[in-house]
Amino acid sequence: MTPFSAIFVPHELREAVSDRAWLQGMLDAEHALAEAGAAVGLLPEEAVARIEKACRAQLYDPARVADDGRAVGNPAEPLVRELRAAVGEETAGYVHLGATSQDIVDTAAMLVCRRATELVLAELDRLADGCAALARAHRSTPMAARTLLQQAVPTTFGLKAAGWLVSVLEARRSLATVREGRLAAQLGGAAGTLAALGDEALEVVRLYAGELGLAEPLLPWHANRQRVAEVGAALDAVAGAAAKVGRDVVLLAQSEVGEVAEASGGRSSTMPQKRNPVRSTLAVACARLANAHAEVLLGGLAHEHERAVGGWHAEWEALSGALAFAGGSAAAAADAITGLEVDADRMRANLEAGGGLVLAERLAFALAPRLGRTAAHDVVSEAARARSFREALLVDERTGLTADELDALLDPTGYLGAAEALVDRALGAFEEART
Amino acid sequence: MTPFSAIFVPHELREAVSDRAWLQGMLDAEHALAEAGAAVGLLPEEAVARIEKACRAQLYDPARVADDGRAVGNPAEPLVRELRAAVGEETAGYVHLGATSQDIVDTAAMLVCRRATELVLAELDRLADGCAALARAHRSTPMAARTLLQQAVPTTFGLKAAGWLVSVLEARRSLATVREGRLAAQLGGAAGTLAALGDEALEVVRLYAGELGLAEPLLPWHANRQRVAEVGAALDAVAGAAAKVGRDVVLLAQSEVGEVAEASGGRSSTMPQKRNPVRSTLAVACARLANAHAEVLLGGLAHEHERAVGGWHAEWEALSGALAFAGGSAAAAADAITGLEVDADRMRANLEAGGGLVLAERLAFALAPRLGRTAAHDVVSEAARARSFREALLVDERTGLTADELDALLDPTGYLGAAEALVDRALGAFEEART
Amino acid sequence: MTPFSAIFVPHELREAVSDRAWLQGMLDAEHALAEAGAAVGLLPEEAVARIEKACRAQLYDPARVADDGRAVGNPAEPLVRELRAAVGEETAGYVHLGATSQDIVDTAAMLVCRRATELVLAELDRLADGCAALARAHRSTPMAARTLLQQAVPTTFGLKAAGWLVSVLEARRSLATVREGRLAAQLGGAAGTLAALGDEALEVVRLYAGELGLAEPLLPWHANRQRVAEVGAALDAVAGAAAKVGRDVVLLAQSEVGEVAEASGGRSSTMPQKRNPVRSTLAVACARLANAHAEVLLGGLAHEHERAVGGWHAEWEALSGALAFAGGSAAAAADAITGLEVDADRMRANLEAGGGLVLAERLAFALAPRLGRTAAHDVVSEAARARSFREALLVDERTGLTADELDALLDPTGYLGAAEALVDRALGAFEEART
Amino acid sequence: MTPFSAIFVPHELREAVSDRAWLQGMLDAEHALAEAGAAVGLLPEEAVARIEKACRAQLYDPARVADDGRAVGNPAEPLVRELRAAVGEETAGYVHLGATSQDIVDTAAMLVCRRATELVLAELDRLADGCAALARAHRSTPMAARTLLQQAVPTTFGLKAAGWLVSVLEARRSLATVREGRLAAQLGGAAGTLAALGDEALEVVRLYAGELGLAEPLLPWHANRQRVAEVGAALDAVAGAAAKVGRDVVLLAQSEVGEVAEASGGRSSTMPQKRNPVRSTLAVACARLANAHAEVLLGGLAHEHERAVGGWHAEWEALSGALAFAGGSAAAAADAITGLEVDADRMRANLEAGGGLVLAERLAFALAPRLGRTAAHDVVSEAARARSFREALLVDERTGLTADELDALLDPTGYLGAAEALVDRALGAFEEART
Repeated sequence: MTPFSAIFVPHELREAVSDRAWLQGMLDAEHALAEAGAAVGLLPEEAVARIEKACRAQLYDPARVADDGRAVGNPAEPLVRELRAAVGEETAGYVHLGATSQDIVDTAAMLVCRRATELVLAELDRLADGCAALARAHRSTPMAARTLLQQAVPTTFGLKAAGWLVSVLEARRSLATVREGRLAAQLGGAAGTLAALGDEALEVVRLYAGELGLAEPLLPWHANRQRVAEVGAALDAVAGAAAKVGRDVVLLAQSEVGEVAEASGGRSSTMPQKRNPVRSTLAVACARLANAHAEVLLGGLAHEHERAVGGWHAEWEALSGALAFAGGSAAAAADAITGLEVDADRMRANLEAGGGLVLAERLAFALAPRLGRTAAHDVVSEAARARSFREALLVDERTGLTADELDALLDPTGYLGAAEALVDRALGAFEEART
Repeated sequence: MTPFSAIFVPHELREAVSDRAWLQGMLDAEHALAEAGAAVGLLPEEAVARIEKACRAQLYDPARVADDGRAVGNPAEPLVRELRAAVGEETAGYVHLGATSQDIVDTAAMLVCRRATELVLAELDRLADGCAALARAHRSTPMAARTLLQQAVPTTFGLKAAGWLVSVLEARRSLATVREGRLAAQLGGAAGTLAALGDEALEVVRLYAGELGLAEPLLPWHANRQRVAEVGAALDAVAGAAAKVGRDVVLLAQSEVGEVAEASGGRSSTMPQKRNPVRSTLAVACARLANAHAEVLLGGLAHEHERAVGGWHAEWEALSGALAFAGGSAAAAADAITGLEVDADRMRANLEAGGGLVLAERLAFALAPRLGRTAAHDVVSEAARARSFREALLVDERTGLTADELDALLDPTGYLGAAEALVDRALGAFEEART
Repeated sequence: MTPFSAIFVPHELREAVSDRAWLQGMLDAEHALAEAGAAVGLLPEEAVARIEKACRAQLYDPARVADDGRAVGNPAEPLVRELRAAVGEETAGYVHLGATSQDIVDTAAMLVCRRATELVLAELDRLADGCAALARAHRSTPMAARTLLQQAVPTTFGLKAAGWLVSVLEARRSLATVREGRLAAQLGGAAGTLAALGDEALEVVRLYAGELGLAEPLLPWHANRQRVAEVGAALDAVAGAAAKVGRDVVLLAQSEVGEVAEASGGRSSTMPQKRNPVRSTLAVACARLANAHAEVLLGGLAHEHERAVGGWHAEWEALSGALAFAGGSAAAAADAITGLEVDADRMRANLEAGGGLVLAERLAFALAPRLGRTAAHDVVSEAARARSFREALLVDERTGLTADELDALLDPTGYLGAAEALVDRALGAFEEART
Repeated sequence: MTPFSAIFVPHELREAVSDRAWLQGMLDAEHALAEAGAAVGLLPEEAVARIEKACRAQLYDPARVADDGRAVGNPAEPLVRELRAAVGEETAGYVHLGATSQDIVDTAAMLVCRRATELVLAELDRLADGCAALARAHRSTPMAARTLLQQAVPTTFGLKAAGWLVSVLEARRSLATVREGRLAAQLGGAAGTLAALGDEALEVVRLYAGELGLAEPLLPWHANRQRVAEVGAALDAVAGAAAKVGRDVVLLAQSEVGEVAEASGGRSSTMPQKRNPVRSTLAVACARLANAHAEVLLGGLAHEHERAVGGWHAEWEALSGALAFAGGSAAAAADAITGLEVDADRMRANLEAGGGLVLAERLAFALAPRLGRTAAHDVVSEAARARSFREALLVDERTGLTADELDALLDPTGYLGAAEALVDRALGAFEEART
């Protein structure tokens, strides 16, 4: 129902979750079923050929299928009727052999997932590349780390980007794992016993899954939706990783912070000066929507008996939406950091704007051996409330610091801790994940 | 992104939340702004006429607007550019006068809400009518009340339907209240101060709202989304009321219960005997999706400063989806009970199948004066574990009941309590709400 | 299950949703039932007196009630057993007369709501007072309005606070409306027919509700949870209004913005200089948790038949949590702005830091009559990309502006639009709501 | 905030997520930090010994820690102050060396997760054992499979239980995987650079993680919450698997179905005959609450910069609740099926109550070779609408079936398809998972 969906979701991904894509998925399932059935002798090769020919989405009108589907509550039943008409009376009886509507729709859902997650993974790779490039380029670029949006201590922009990178890699791994191992064919017949497929039923399932390139499930999963929830959780993780990048970019791009700017900031309809962080904003918006859709999948595991009352039907929109918006989120975040303008001078200036306050922790540690921890903390806290932190420390005899010693302690580049080593770790993991 | 959306949402409602509807909403906002501006002398009447003429959705391609909107993160900016081109250079400067993109999109959202909630209310009315008809017709039809899905005591089907009715009426009131009082025009200019509209700004807002037939807000509400959350909560209430009906119908339609059947039960693609409660199932599915969309609105109130980072953008899909699926839920529930086949004999048979166990509470109460509460409870519990409840009670001398007395106590129609009076109350409220 | 709940929720409010409070609510229900029953002659006055005496929470151990409740799935059944033991055998039979466990637990829930929402409203009032005080004091204090966290145009801090105020007032009205009209007594007997209460059943309900000071419902609402969802939605609105304040304060308190600071900023365990916006942070955290709990209520409307399978049981935690965290959110936000340090100079400095860019919209409007809208926009955009916006405009002959004219246009206090008038409106509504 | 939490969550699990458990987790983190620091020479062994001695939860009052934590927004800062007081002035400076509050709270969260998930896994094992026992015992017990709660075709109760089992095993695997690989120590110092720990910082992290038996993270994860979301998703999966069992048991235990009964059905406070499926109901209720808590973790990934504004703080309750309710759900489901009374006769009777209708699919398939698919479907559909399905088929000459042939086709045990083979598959996977 998304108004103006092109604002949020890349074209190819919208196609991948479209009515037409679902339709083709259902037809691929029917075709694979015919192939598998023929392999065990349930239908003749000519029938398969006729079915294959009719299993092309462009032959059907998704809108009509949907209209007809309202009466039965799913799109497979009307599609099967149309498919039977298309193959001719002789072959009609071999169509949909031993399958139930849910077999076809669930298998289509998995095929839609496979195609769409490929696109989502590509966006994630683009995002990971962008994060890695920033981490590498700014491995040692000092900036303020911020906790509760307050300057805390120095860090490097590279470490911030490395943090994004690790999060993206973790989400990528979750999605890839689910994609590789958990997208399974569905074939159980009317209620999961495969009774209509006769003695060769399990062999038909094996061949059907193989034909489709989907995993063969241990059991039909009509009412066991663990794998669907796993897809949802992985997409939510993707959206979350992208939203983290988007949110940080927006915060860094604030007028008063000005440390980064999106390469192609968005125009305002009235304010000529504005360069809105539009891509980052869209990443955040998409993530919220991906999360809401994923939640339908995660919260809907308790399907009744052998087919759910509504829980199953709600999955179609939830899955399409989670795929589209998770991908939209990753794409927008990748766009946001591609060519991101990084203002290292401003980062340095912001870091120094507090007159060294961002190094208060360092000072307290440095003075502790001489003064004791508590007294050191007090000396520094007192100075932190003065007009000039540096001056206050300089005139306070308790510190015992010369101006040079003090200035060395107030140099943020001397207090980056393991930032650079951590960047290297993240880049190492990135290189490894890539191979 | 809903695949096969016609399965879930009536045609007219889909139209009402479509890209085209949003587009027309934005154009209506621009037109109203021109009218209001002209009324205080900010633009000449000829400009208004030219703008009005250009404010028809069919002149624009929503797909292109969306494509262009990706760069700026909203559809208003590109639409304004197209609208300016359409009215000619002379008038272009008078388009979008003093407004910001969010003014236009938010106002469109409210117009979309107004139109779509009209349709949702119509579905709710149909649902209420159906419930009322059932309550009236079955005011005294005895059936088993069930708690935790266990037969508890007798009730009437009329009281069950009256319960649905009251829930529907309450949801209707919530939605109507929001619709009448809380759909407000949005006009705040760049950031809510209306600075670009000059001294007459507040008058322009008043006229603009009046022109659109929307409420005039106390303040611009760019970042105060209480009213949007209220719309979401009301739609969630609607979906919940519909889902309650749907879920109960499915439970009553179970093969082993068989007390109702949808007039046009759904075909199965393989099982000729099945009459699936499809409409009820769709009501449940739609409600789950309406809930997920509404939740985006309810959970997204903390918009940053004067315009949110993503929270606003996520609302468009959430609002469209909540409207569509809430309406879809109400429509499906209304369909489910329209012409619902009610099997009063089966209700009676189910009630009696337990051999009077459903009247155990009554027996315990009846015996209490003679035996004391605890002993009475024990006598009845003991009998409840016997092969025949009636026999056991009959032979137990402690009861002191004759067979006739016992049979009278075991007559479910004698233990309906206030069921009928409560039905009358609900129908009274229904009649009152209607006028 | 909240770890360290005192961090999030004020003491009194925790008490109001505690086991003990629920216990007392259940006992109040039992007592009221006895009073109502006696009034129509169902039990003698002496029994009422004995029941009343036993209806004090301190006589029971909530932990034992809970332990015993596990076997039956609710706390009312074991409590009734204990209560019967406490009143003595003679009176035992008059306890819980004609009621079911859900009658007692639901009524307790409403009493818990009544008491807890009183506390939530008090926190909201404190929050509204704080917002109003800020709106009044800073009616004309200029600051930058920010959209997508970018400086947009000037506004006043008073208008920002007025925006918070209106949101808080709206949420308050929602909660007060639900509190006054929708907290209803529950009394339906085993399954909503009141059969065990005999002919006077409806009169008993009326008296019972009156005794408790709760609304008398049209019908028993065991399986119609609209009112519970309304409570949830109202609490979510409260939390959202509080979180909006919290989020804005955190953003304004950023090191690089520095426009406000919480009066008692939180210590860091290591960084002596930090003054963390702790209260605002807690407001945001509580709101997230309130929202999650409210969502259980909103998404759980479709209770099965006459009593739900789990949907009802999940409400107890959801309700307690929504009340506690919504109140916690309001309390934290109120704390955050009480004594808020507002740095008007920094607001002005931030506004001017962009060298007048924040007035670009104004310039474009001012130049439009002379240059045409498009050319004016271009001139300003060009200048916005120059090193100095002011210089660029000054040397650009197309503007035709003298230095004085330009400086007047670049004065932010001259471009506040209706900000002050809008503050007055909000304060007017505040005064009105108060009376 | 859960009222009467013992109804929902086993005692040991409540302990495992209690304030005291969190407190001990924080103290374990502080102790491990001291050990790790000493190993690289940052503090003397005597200090470690003193710290170790003071790191016992019973020495502190969680309520006071929470009260003091309100001012700083977390429990670690006040605990560190108390711990420093406890170890004496000399050692105080060595406490919390180089750590930030979030290091300590996050590490405690992981330790709480480790202990609590151990209990959750034990409940899951009990649930899996129960499912496996039912699958084995009822491998061939025929019953009706139900789709949309309508009888569809025959299946076996063993296959139903096998479906539960596979779902439980999948959820178990998800949780075990997260538990083994993703519960990581947190140590990043003030903002993730470890600056205060000097040159040996990364070695300290390694030793600290080792000391705690937690994974060593690639980077500090203060603002990368992927692992927390993974915990949430796994707990949601657990709850979903348990709720599936609970929901099915409730449906099978309905008065009109009567195929199973919980061994210790719950008493009603008024209805002596009732045996409520209480455990199953609690499994469903807990799952709803687990889902809501998990959702806070899943939807909250976009933490701001180096520490989140509220998103982090909301995790504590969300994590505790998700652990407790997921475990509660698994425990209740395990209780529900332990000793489950299975009425195979009633299953058979229900299967046959439809007079063979549940075999309509089989008939249609059997007649298809003779009549063609469409005609066969029609013949069967027609008969399905007759008073007696069997009679109608018998008198319809088109079928060409003798009474014996027909009765053979109407024997449900002849149409179980691969049910038994699928049970074996599931049991095989169960055995394998166990070893």
